[in-house]
Amino acid sequence: MSDHKATVIDGKAIAQTIRSEIATEVRRLSETYGKVPGLAVVIVGNRKDSESYVNMKRKACAEVGIKSVDTNLPEDVSETELICRVHYLNVNPDVHGILVQLPLPKHINEEKVLTEIALEKDVDGFHPMNIGKLAMKGREPLFVPCTPKGCVELLKRSGITIKGKKAVVVGRSNIVGLPVTLLLLKEDATVTVVHSGTKEPESIIREADIIIAAVGQAMMVTIASPCPYCLHNECN
Amino acid sequence: MSDHKATVIDGKAIAQTIRSEIATEVRRLSETYGKVPGLAVVIVGNRKDSESYVNMKRKACAEVGIKSVDTNLPEDVSETELICRVHYLNVNPDVHGILVQLPLPKHINEEKVLTEIALEKDVDGFHPMNIGKLAMKGREPLFVPCTPKGCVELLKRSGITIKGKKAVVVGRSNIVGLPVTLLLLKEDATVTVVHSGTKEPESIIREADIIIAAVGQAMMVTIASPCPYCLHNECN
Repeated sequence: MSDHKATVIDGKAIAQTIRSEIATEVRRLSETYGKVPGLAVVIVGNRKDSESYVNMKRKACAEVGIKSVDTNLPEDVSETELICRVHYLNVNPDVHGILVQLPLPKHINEEKVLTEIALEKDVDGFHPMNIGKLAMKGREPLFVPCTPKGCVELLKRSGITIKGKKAVVVGRSNIVGLPVTLLLLKEDATVTVVHSGTKEPESIIREADIIIAAVGQAMMVTIASPCPYCLHNECN
Repeated sequence: MSDHKATVIDGKAIAQTIRSEIATEVRRLSETYGKVPGLAVVIVGNRKDSESYVNMKRKACAEVGIKSVDTNLPEDVSETELICRVHYLNVNPDVHGILVQLPLPKHINEEKVLTEIALEKDVDGFHPMNIGKLAMKGREPLFVPCTPKGCVELLKRSGITIKGKKAVVVGRSNIVGLPVTLLLLKEDATVTVVHSGTKEPESIIREADIIIAAVGQAMMVTIASPCPYCLHNECN
């Protein structure tokens, strides 16, 4: 029974290790080539959640020595001007990565804006070309979306083998569910995608070795009526 | 128990219906615009299986009135010359679709060649940009790979609802397994991908409402020890 006991993954500790590794890399880059990596973070409007994400990203940059290039645009910026700013960042040699914080205001076509980001600066990995390469065997995207990459990294750094495991991904968003599914497939997991159209998701989730809950709703993943004796529902 | 009886899908009859629909469309196009669709089929070398596939494609074109533009190249054609031929077809206004028959000889980089096909003529749908859009919610590829599209079309035209069904895809090749997985997800199936790294694939396959066997091996999908009484293994 001991192999069924839950282990809490200490994400904060792993993140701290990764950050210090990145800080070392950044220092080496700047000592060797006299260049520091630059990340442009573009935010439109004043959504509180977006501002908080963006601030976390800018703070994380500062901590590891990445130069953050801020672009704050008003809520009513036109699509044309936003695209123009993206083009400007595309050619700016001090900018090596561009993040456009989502969601964008309704009058702006997200797809159009994201497709304008130069492929080699698409650090979010949301360009269809990068998603396509993430999906395809034998191809490698230039960048992998960060939350899915983080999930897999947490598993690996916690000593969890992904290969051969039954993985269930709950949700199929372009930002998390879909790319994490593609990543887990590349890692040789047997992957099932559960979503709003799935009948009896609990019975599928219960069979999983690895569950990635990628829906913006707490308590979406629960184990139905856990048995008080065996604790891992095999008797259900 | 009657709903567990197998129904054999008559693929040939459905194909014939689709072909006559396409023939009508092609006729209308040529009457209205004086243009017939042109499909370039490129084959390198003399592989028997490739020749047979290509002949079937050319025959199917003739049957529906699509103009087939043949490019047969010798086994030892250089990568540069092959790409040059693709570029020529890209700009040929009589060619609306380009198929490069796979596999290519070992000295040619398949990825490089396929990426050179103009997106708007990538009728195989294998360009990472088309695969990426096939994968992403809210995006539509210009073309969907034909075998996966055929699988879904066969199900639909046989009156089988995909939405909410448990689908299991066996295999994850770029050509069939991966794109059919992405298509079934878009059709709101709950999809599991089973592959060479899957432990106990039978137990997963047995739970499926829809099984797509996409590995080049007969008898890969079997129902383990079928019960002679209920015939559908629910008693196992």
